[in-house]
This record gives sequence, structure tokens and C-alpha cells, in this order.
Amino acid sequence: MSKTKNKSLRIGLVGCGVVGGGVAEALLSKDKPWNNVPDSPNLELVRVADINWPASAKLGNGIVVPKSLRTSSIDDIISDPTIDTVIELIGGTGIAQDVIIRAIKAGKNVVTANKALLAKHGKKLFLLAGRAKREIAFEAAVAGGIPILSAIRAGLSANKIETIYGILNGTTNFILTRMTETGCTFSSALLEAQRLGFAEADPTLDIQGYDAAHKIQLLTALALGINVDMKNIPVRGIQDVSDIDISYAKQLGCKIKLIASAKITRAGIEIEVAPTLISNAHQLASVNNEINAVFVEGNMVGQQIFVGKGAGRYPTASAVISDCLELASGGGRKYVDCMNNAKSMLTVPKEKYVSEFYLRISASDKPGVLGTVTGVLGKEGISIKSCVQLESNEVGAPVPIALMTHNTSLSKIEAVKKRIDELSVIKAKTVFFSVIK
Amino acid sequence: MSKTKNKSLRIGLVGCGVVGGGVAEALLSKDKPWNNVPDSPNLELVRVADINWPASAKLGNGIVVPKSLRTSSIDDIISDPTIDTVIELIGGTGIAQDVIIRAIKAGKNVVTANKALLAKHGKKLFLLAGRAKREIAFEAAVAGGIPILSAIRAGLSANKIETIYGILNGTTNFILTRMTETGCTFSSALLEAQRLGFAEADPTLDIQGYDAAHKIQLLTALALGINVDMKNIPVRGIQDVSDIDISYAKQLGCKIKLIASAKITRAGIEIEVAPTLISNAHQLASVNNEINAVFVEGNMVGQQIFVGKGAGRYPTASAVISDCLELASGGGRKYVDCMNNAKSMLTVPKEKYVSEFYLRISASDKPGVLGTVTGVLGKEGISIKSCVQLESNEVGAPVPIALMTHNTSLSKIEAVKKRIDELSVIKAKTVFFSVIK
Repeated sequence: MSKTKNKSLRIGLVGCGVVGGGVAEALLSKDKPWNNVPDSPNLELVRVADINWPASAKLGNGIVVPKSLRTSSIDDIISDPTIDTVIELIGGTGIAQDVIIRAIKAGKNVVTANKALLAKHGKKLFLLAGRAKREIAFEAAVAGGIPILSAIRAGLSANKIETIYGILNGTTNFILTRMTETGCTFSSALLEAQRLGFAEADPTLDIQGYDAAHKIQLLTALALGINVDMKNIPVRGIQDVSDIDISYAKQLGCKIKLIASAKITRAGIEIEVAPTLISNAHQLASVNNEINAVFVEGNMVGQQIFVGKGAGRYPTASAVISDCLELASGGGRKYVDCMNNAKSMLTVPKEKYVSEFYLRISASDKPGVLGTVTGVLGKEGISIKSCVQLESNEVGAPVPIALMTHNTSLSKIEAVKKRIDELSVIKAKTVFFSVIK
Repeated sequence: MSKTKNKSLRIGLVGCGVVGGGVAEALLSKDKPWNNVPDSPNLELVRVADINWPASAKLGNGIVVPKSLRTSSIDDIISDPTIDTVIELIGGTGIAQDVIIRAIKAGKNVVTANKALLAKHGKKLFLLAGRAKREIAFEAAVAGGIPILSAIRAGLSANKIETIYGILNGTTNFILTRMTETGCTFSSALLEAQRLGFAEADPTLDIQGYDAAHKIQLLTALALGINVDMKNIPVRGIQDVSDIDISYAKQLGCKIKLIASAKITRAGIEIEVAPTLISNAHQLASVNNEINAVFVEGNMVGQQIFVGKGAGRYPTASAVISDCLELASGGGRKYVDCMNNAKSMLTVPKEKYVSEFYLRISASDKPGVLGTVTGVLGKEGISIKSCVQLESNEVGAPVPIALMTHNTSLSKIEAVKKRIDELSVIKAKTVFFSVIK
């Protein structure tokens, strides 16, 4: 047992919006569950910076940020020598980056939920923190309230982890769930998600898979010890998932989920974000709505699954505060040490990325179309596991052909897609998804 | 960030059987995943006590416990002042208790997987450790490789937890899964579990629910902060679950699982181990075979689910080693502080324990039986949600009547069971299970 006395933190919070407000509320509440045990560290909120006072001062449960704590100047936090910990919750890669760099240079530890910033510019920031012997803690950046980074750094610390994947974006999972449950179109599910606050006004980062890509980049560095540049992660979002795909997946006993995955193979690191068909028997298939889930495979522990809310005010604030408590008491492998220790590895070439695939082809309703299309697959040496040509909704409309292949390579699938899309009978771009059994 | 330098541990291992052997193998292996990060603590295995040398010396992957480390005397570990950490993996409540007490008195920290001992005698042991400022770490005692205690003490440390439940025993989950998947009887599923090593030769502790009760006792103290004496935990095992129940549950769109649960309510702590009908839509319904799963509900984070292997050599060893790494580096709320801080609370009286219930009644195949039986429920004011009288297998054999009630109290169900079992038409004791929707 470490003999260190738990120390208290003096915290400066930058950003008092959705998540920041939740953090402030918990830190200012009289009922702090973490204080139930003797000698627990004291988390003292010393200053809160936001540009939206007094509106941001009103938190939940009747708690208000006291005037004496409010500031609109980040300098008030950076230049306060009594503040040892800066929580950055403004998001984005501009000012946020500046705040983190200045905080570290001023000798402070940082807690952040900023996945986009860390996935894109983390290498530089973690190096800076490592040299300054400071910590950048980011439990809240990946899968919200699920303590997956804590599990990797502490609970599963005995394990070599070579596979990690999951549902890391709540917005897309909500949309896919609604499409599955109601049979509605992508755009009406997106509208519902926006109305309920599960999707932002501009949902591009979520829908196109980049948010999930940021998270799998961070998980891959922390859990697998492999640093992959964002530009080397193939990202396919859910923008092309149609109600036809959902309905065909149902017939196959599958669900469609946006899966972010990373696996160390002999051919390199296999990492991607992609819409994926998952058998209903798989535990990820029943993770619905805005819920996230992470699969981790450790060499000793086998397969572990963590399920919970991946976003939202209080779940994310829960992760931020657990990081603060850990900073105060020590414990777990340090984030910065792990991130700086991550090695480079070549990504698996497309020829060696092998999976079953689902394809949906939109063709003219003409005799011989099915033969032409399947002929292209045959020439490429791809064998077909099952195939359905569906009826078109109206006369003259393109007919969707949905098929599942046996194992083949991504390079062959891309080649086939290209060749099919060049055929004169093809009415819309061919869509393909990966498959997990 | 704690400024403590990670320290190394000098470890004495007591018990080199299934789990102990897995721990020794990992500690003696050249490839230690936890050493991949700079400044990680060194876990040095100094001595191993076992009564079964040389057989126990042979570990997996060609690793052998060196002769210089082997001893058959526990004293060699307790009296070695250079050993700072004792891992107790002999099990049982006799010698194991003695080892832990002597280790603490000798100023050593303890890591153990011994749920029976800690659930029964933990209060005394944790007090002793608290006074000596020593730690008793027991991640491996609950849900094997699932880092649930780490999650409670660190990852979810910001949360007030008032509900925790799950599948905490792999043997019974394996048996129930086989019965569900093959339609076989309880006894043939048990035989299969024993053949595959998922059930011990004497499976009483598992089958009758006591192993799960030990684990929920520990979880309730650690997560809910409530100390419940083992004798106050109502425990019903799976010994009375028949293939008729499994088949009827299927018709209802449910699975039967052995659920250990604890919840703080206004009327006190509601804690039990009981066979339970769970809707197929519930995530626990798809946790099969020997896998364990724990549900935790935190006030900030909402519902979290942790799924993984709950027993076995390497998963349990993974938990033991994560505890050792944490002892070396500090972190998380201390086990001993949390356990000593747990308060007493009255258990909910049976009148206030409200649930839907499933009952199976075995009656003579005579006219009017169904009316007689349901009449008893009516008199007690219990309304019936659904009811099936099944055909008997052979002429003269008792007919099973399976029924689901609306919400009612446990006291009423027990009263009804008693009254039904006294009827002359009843051929075997009535069985009842709880229901989770």
C-alpha cells in the first residue's frame, strides 16, 4: 500500500457548459459521495472560467456557482499559483489546446474530455506533459461514464491487450436503434435524435464516424500501446445505412452497429470505424439507444465487456471527477506514461484485412442484372454466402440487391465495388459493411 | 498526481493450486505486460508455500517454481521480514484466516480471493488491518477477472451507489444455460458442468447460492457502504429449478438466472440471492455459460454493466495481480477503509419486499385443482397475471401449474406457498422465483 497521504486538489474549471456545469454541480454539492470514507481527498473548486455568466452559474439541484468563483478570463486560472489542477471542458482544438499547454507549462495537471484534441494533437501534448512530469487525464474523453481507461490502467493492468472494439458513439447508436425498432429512414431517425438531444445541430463528426475514430485512436494508444495517426484510420460512418439494410440485417438475424475497432495482427494494426453487421447472439447487438459498450480482450482475463452511458452531463462529469480523485490519491498507470510509451505500427494492408462483407447494390430492374453483378464478384474470386434481390417500391425504381460474402479481403471488396459502380445498370453507389459473428 | 515513486513488492504466495499457480506463472514469466511502461512497479515473487511439491511446481507455458522459492511452511513467509505482501490462495476459513491474521500482525499487506472467509469473518479482519494500517485487497474474490471492485473504488468513485446486482456464480449460470439451450434436466446439466470443470465435486456452495451470497455481501459493503451479516441474507439456490420452469420461462420470453442483488430502499437494505425470471430484453438474459455480470447504478453515471469471466485460473490471477500493482502504486479508495466504514442497516421486512413472482405448483390431476390453488392466492389478495396448467407426462403423475403474479409481497408469497403445500392435492413443494423486467 502506498504510504502517501491523499492530498487535496485545488481545481480551476475552464468551461461551465453541459459537462462543465455537471462537474461544478458535483464539486459544489454538499453531498459528495467520495467523502464518505475517512482520509478521502478534498476536491476544492477554486475558480470557474466561462464566457456566459450569469446564465452558466445556474447548475442543477439549486446549486449556483458563487460570484467569487466566476471569471471570464482563463488567465485567472492559469496564473493562480494555488490552483494545481485544470479541468478543460470547452472542447474543440483551438483555445482548448492553448489552455492545456499553458496549464502544463504553469506546473498544473490537466483533466479533459476533449477526444478530438487528444486524438489529433495528443502526441505533442503528452510529450510536453511527460517532460514537465505532469498528467493529462482523459477518462471522460472515451465512452463517457464507462470507466474503461481506469480498467485498462488499473483493473486489467496484469493483461496484455491486443483487441479492443465497441460502440463508442451514442448518437449513431441511437439512430441505428430507432431505424431498427421503427423501420424509419435514416433522416427521420436523425431528426428524432436531434429533437431528444442525442445529436447536435451539426452531427457530421458523429454521423460520419470521426468521433468514434478519435476514441478508438486514444484506446489503441492506451490499451494496445500502439500510436496510430488519425489520417491512417479508415473511417466509414452511418450516412449510407438505409432502412433496406436494416431490414435485410433483421432477416439475417443481425443488427447494424457503428463499430470502432483495433486489433494487433501479424500483418500490423487493424484499425477502423465502420458500420458492421453483428449477429443478434453477440452481446453488442443488445446495446441500444445512446448506450456505449467496449469489448476488451486480455491475455489473462479473456473477454471483458463494459456497458454504460457514453455521453451526457452527469455520466461525463462522473468520469472527470474520478480522474480528479485519482490525481489526488495516485494509482493506476499514469496516462501520460502510457501514451508516451505507445509505439508506431504499420496498419494492416487492405489485402490482408479479411472479413465477411455485406453489400447492397442498386440496379435497374432489368433481366440479367443479378447475373451481371454476381459475375463481377465471381471474377474477383469472392464467393457469395447469401443473396436477395428485393422488389422495387415503384415501377422503374432501382431494385436493391443485398448480399453477404464469405471471407474475403477489403481490397477485393473495394475493387468489386468500383467495378460494379461502373456498370451501366447501377443506379446508386454500392454500399458495403463489415461483419462480426 | 501523487508524487510517490512506484515501489516494488516482495511477495510471498500461500497456495500454488489452480489460481495460485496462475499467479506464480504470471509473476515468473519473462513477459510481464505491466512492465511495458517506464517506472512500473516490480512484483518480485520471493517465496511460495504449498504442501504439494513438486507437483505444484509445474506451471503453464513451461514455467516452473524454482526450488529456492518453494517451501511447505507458511512460517517461512510470515517470518521473512523482507516480504511485504502475502497472497493468500488456499481458500477455506480455517488456515487461510490464520495466515491473514499473522501476515497483518507481521506488518504485511494481504491479497486474497477468499470470499467465504471475508464474507463471514471480514469484519474482524478488516478492523485488525485498519488498526495496523495494512490493506486486505480482494478484487479476485468477487466476479473473478471482472475489475468490479476497482471500478467501485476508482472509476466510479464520484458516485453514490444504491443498487448493485448480477450473476455472480459461474457454475449455476452454466447449469441454467445448458438447461435452457438443450432442455435437459438439472441433474444432467450439473453432471456436464462437473465433467467440464465448471462445477466442483461437491457443488453445494455454488448450487445452493451461498457462493453468490458471499460475493453480494462483499459488494454491498464496498459499493453501498452497508454491512449485512451473512445470516441476514435470504439465500435460495437453483436446486429446485426444473426443466418445466425453464420451458415455461421461454414461453414468457424470459430466462431464469441466479441473481444476487442489493438495493438501498426507504424500508432498509433489500438483499438476497434467488433464482429469477429475467426478460430476454434485459442485458443479463444474454450473459450465458460460466460468464458473470454485474450491474451497478450510480447517481451520476447511471446504469453500468460489467461482463466477463467470473472464475478460472488466469482471470482470477489477473485480479490478484492488479491488486498487487495497486498496492505498489497506490490508488483507489482503500479496501480496508471502505469496509471499516460500512454501516449497519436493517434488512427490508418481507412485507415490504415487493415484486412479481413466478410459482410452480405440483398437484394431483383431479378436477377442480386449478380452482382450489388459485383460490388460495385470491384469498391472500394476490392477483394472477398469467397461468398455465401443463399436461402431466404420464397417467397419475402430478400436473405442474405455472403462474405469474402481479406485484405482491414476499411475505404473502411465502404464506401462500405454505397454505398451498398443505393442500391434500399437492404432490411436491411449491417453488417460487423473483422476476426482473
